[in-house]
Amino acid sequence: MTRFPFTRIVRELPATTPFVGPEAIERERGEPFRLRVGANESAFGISPRAREAMRTAIEHVSWYNDPEGWDLRSAVAHRHGVSVDEICLGAGIDDLLGLVVRMSVEPGTPVVTSLGAYPTFNYHVSGYGGELHRVSYRDDRIDLEALAAKASEVRAPLVFLANPDNPMGTWHDAAAVRTFIDALPEACLLILDEAYVEFAPESSGLPVATDDPRVIRMRTFSKAHGMAGARIGYAVAHTAIIEAFNKIRLHFGVNRIAQAGALASLEDPDFVAWVVEEVRKGREDYYALAEDLGLRALTSATNFVAIDAGDGARARTLLAALRDRGVFVRMPGVAPLERCIRVTVGTGAERAQFAEILTSVVRSGNISGNTLA
Amino acid sequence: MTRFPFTRIVRELPATTPFVGPEAIERERGEPFRLRVGANESAFGISPRAREAMRTAIEHVSWYNDPEGWDLRSAVAHRHGVSVDEICLGAGIDDLLGLVVRMSVEPGTPVVTSLGAYPTFNYHVSGYGGELHRVSYRDDRIDLEALAAKASEVRAPLVFLANPDNPMGTWHDAAAVRTFIDALPEACLLILDEAYVEFAPESSGLPVATDDPRVIRMRTFSKAHGMAGARIGYAVAHTAIIEAFNKIRLHFGVNRIAQAGALASLEDPDFVAWVVEEVRKGREDYYALAEDLGLRALTSATNFVAIDAGDGARARTLLAALRDRGVFVRMPGVAPLERCIRVTVGTGAERAQFAEILTSVVRSGNISGNTLA
Repeated sequence: MTRFPFTRIVRELPATTPFVGPEAIERERGEPFRLRVGANESAFGISPRAREAMRTAIEHVSWYNDPEGWDLRSAVAHRHGVSVDEICLGAGIDDLLGLVVRMSVEPGTPVVTSLGAYPTFNYHVSGYGGELHRVSYRDDRIDLEALAAKASEVRAPLVFLANPDNPMGTWHDAAAVRTFIDALPEACLLILDEAYVEFAPESSGLPVATDDPRVIRMRTFSKAHGMAGARIGYAVAHTAIIEAFNKIRLHFGVNRIAQAGALASLEDPDFVAWVVEEVRKGREDYYALAEDLGLRALTSATNFVAIDAGDGARARTLLAALRDRGVFVRMPGVAPLERCIRVTVGTGAERAQFAEILTSVVRSGNISGNTLA
Repeated sequence: MTRFPFTRIVRELPATTPFVGPEAIERERGEPFRLRVGANESAFGISPRAREAMRTAIEHVSWYNDPEGWDLRSAVAHRHGVSVDEICLGAGIDDLLGLVVRMSVEPGTPVVTSLGAYPTFNYHVSGYGGELHRVSYRDDRIDLEALAAKASEVRAPLVFLANPDNPMGTWHDAAAVRTFIDALPEACLLILDEAYVEFAPESSGLPVATDDPRVIRMRTFSKAHGMAGARIGYAVAHTAIIEAFNKIRLHFGVNRIAQAGALASLEDPDFVAWVVEEVRKGREDYYALAEDLGLRALTSATNFVAIDAGDGARARTLLAALRDRGVFVRMPGVAPLERCIRVTVGTGAERAQFAEILTSVVRSGNISGNTLA
């Protein structure tokens, strides 16, 4: 329709969305899910302090949020031992990813990520006309050597790494990440997405502190802090990068209630420690469940577990059977990751329910022509 | 610093922000404002139904928000008598403005607005490398004829019009807006920012219903609904434009609490009607106050009143004197609008306080060398 004066990028973009929400699937199914363990949302709620702070914020919601997010940025900076000028808030990591892509990607710019890694990053790269180069996982982990080699080969100004990884839940230790960063080209930004870092075992050597000016670390309140629906996260980066954020970000984009809740949650480390311990126990339950059923569960440093169904067809069958029984789970879209379904750690009751349904599905044997176990 | 691989647009962008928040001014002053009537925030709070819905949403904030915003979009569509596919939600009009600019502006693209109109729109246009053409106001109103003429002259694919207007509070009736739309070039999008439309007197003939595919109407829950800090608004537009939004928007960008609150507020028209009536009375108070002090107040169709101080120097002096006394107000930045200060309608108590302080400031006569009254 020539009367709409869209840019070439927008005209040529496909009408895709990185994720279909469970609500949309429910509308299509005509009934709600019984069990929502597909989006790596926290089953353990929010800190009582965060709840109180958010309730209070509602009483002041007629006022705009502080566009500088000063109080929260100060608290975050203090926590990380950096300056306030090294922190940028965003409406979740998704928002921050879009801003970094916008500041470094033009039509044709090469960008490197892993094949099967976070779709929303790819969505942003395509949305600004960048050219995605995807490196395959190796042994269900991000292939750091291949990632750095590809960045050098295509002279990428931007590389994406989630550590711990989503959707596999695997991770690299600090030494490996440092070696990787050192191997990156000089003029290259690295997005280090640490959405799940709180769940990583201490023995993993995470979190990785770094003062390399190329590294943009991203954190979120969506996972361990349980505030996915509030939309808030932050980036820690060199002041020159934060200045670039400030040139293009939506200054009033991080709502007042989220800012208040995040600040309160940050001041309640015991709550987060409790969530992390519950998640650790929940992963163990899933590992044991998978073993019982003759399936392999990947050891995870996140709040979800990838369960290996053997091959893509079996995983898709398993996913469909679970959805038929009212269980919302997701699975990676590309080989060889699509042997797995990805299950979020639920509460004890939810895990028991999931165990019962998964067991019934797997033990029923032949489903839609695919033998599961 | 050449090691940061920023795009040329971002490198060349100045480090500006459309608005400095009152919190930042307070941090600089070292003390809070006594009276916050500078950001056109509602003094009349939120609907009790919205409060209840937002409190309930906090109990589910560990879940992501519906990325399709289905329930709210359905309610909005029903209200406007359009299809759900003609509605896009955003984190306030600011977010939606950025998306429209992104879908239609490339480096060098001419864009038309009014000189002194909404700075955040200009921020986005500059942020995507567009070339702003600004048309002067005429008699403190947007000059619709000049705006359309400029759009034709520079072949702009995008024009911005706020009706009612911010920062002057003036407006054009439906017939004038229709004539204006008809005069726009064929391949030109019009952003019709109706943030303040609820406050317009019925006799103004607003709101303007239009099925012209060039028009993107924008509405917000920040003003009459009192939810500025929650960040939520929407666009009503042709399905082809909504499709373009969906190709580039942050799908999870509109938080769960805001969606719930907005839906509940939409279902409480009596509350909004009460706010509108309170604001109408408050404007009358400001008109009377200005008249008492020998100043001219502009008749407003919004929740604020522009008070004419005579010239820019006097307005700046007045603003500074008010801020010295703890009153947060704002004023337009460019001539001839900068003769005015812009005062948000407060509660009765806030208006009385403002009247007392303004009277004292004006009656004190000569301030910083400028005679005020």
